[in-house]
Amino acid sequence: MMENRAIQDSYADELSHCYGCGRLNTHGLGLKSYSDGEETAAVFEPRHYHTAVPGFVYGGLIASLFDCHGTGSAAIAACRVRKLAPGKDPVPRFVTASLKVDYLRPTPLGGQLQLRGRIKEQKGRKVVVSMTLSAGGRVTARAELVAVAMPEGMLLQR
Amino acid sequence: MMENRAIQDSYADELSHCYGCGRLNTHGLGLKSYSDGEETAAVFEPRHYHTAVPGFVYGGLIASLFDCHGTGSAAIAACRVRKLAPGKDPVPRFVTASLKVDYLRPTPLGGQLQLRGRIKEQKGRKVVVSMTLSAGGRVTARAELVAVAMPEGMLLQR
Repeated sequence: MMENRAIQDSYADELSHCYGCGRLNTHGLGLKSYSDGEETAAVFEPRHYHTAVPGFVYGGLIASLFDCHGTGSAAIAACRVRKLAPGKDPVPRFVTASLKVDYLRPTPLGGQLQLRGRIKEQKGRKVVVSMTLSAGGRVTARAELVAVAMPEGMLLQR
Repeated sequence: MMENRAIQDSYADELSHCYGCGRLNTHGLGLKSYSDGEETAAVFEPRHYHTAVPGFVYGGLIASLFDCHGTGSAAIAACRVRKLAPGKDPVPRFVTASLKVDYLRPTPLGGQLQLRGRIKEQKGRKVVVSMTLSAGGRVTARAELVAVAMPEGMLLQR
């Protein structure tokens, strides 16, 4: 069953400024990722200007959605393993070490896109997430993302 | 020597609506890629809200810059091989088949980022481009992009 609280809404305030999914970034995309059984899920409706060529979704936006859904899925996976309750316990924050996107066919612009994530590997600070993006029930892109627990220095360096 | 006309400014009007680099997309990033000797080059200054965590550039934006600089580099490479003069001859338009980004270290936010591209393989309709992204002279991310000539159907499907 799909959880009713997005993992991004449980990130600490200082980790919630991401352009793709931070609830405190007022300019951003605001992607929200949910636990859904053994998988993870998110939906996103591109804006009219998120075009590659007219009628199709910009590939960089697709990579962005995979980026945030991937790190969100890694956080969900870490909570599952450590038996953390998002919203009560602090949620571990992941960053992207690598992202590979395969654009299988043009993604039509107009309406909601569906993202699905599956944990392929989880070992120490590293989580590998496989994802699909679908439009109207048809998979248009696939991705694999290697997430690593955010180095503490990323906040200390401020 | 660096050309003084961006390849994106030579795309046909109907192919110039890309969110990342289309001159007719008023909401977009407006990336511009240039031929530079045997390589390709672009610069981009992220906006203050293009954050991952405060102080660092959003990974999805980095993927977007690689996406557009990669397809732009493929177009530049195609013009070189076919001896086309951008601005006079029609410029071939490429789309991304796959994009792999390795985030080597956090990219500091504030100031210009430099993109460099190099043609790794060029065969028929396919061009493989290797790229780096640097901040303050230090490479923070690498990418490899497989570009293919845009299928004609992408415009005909409108």
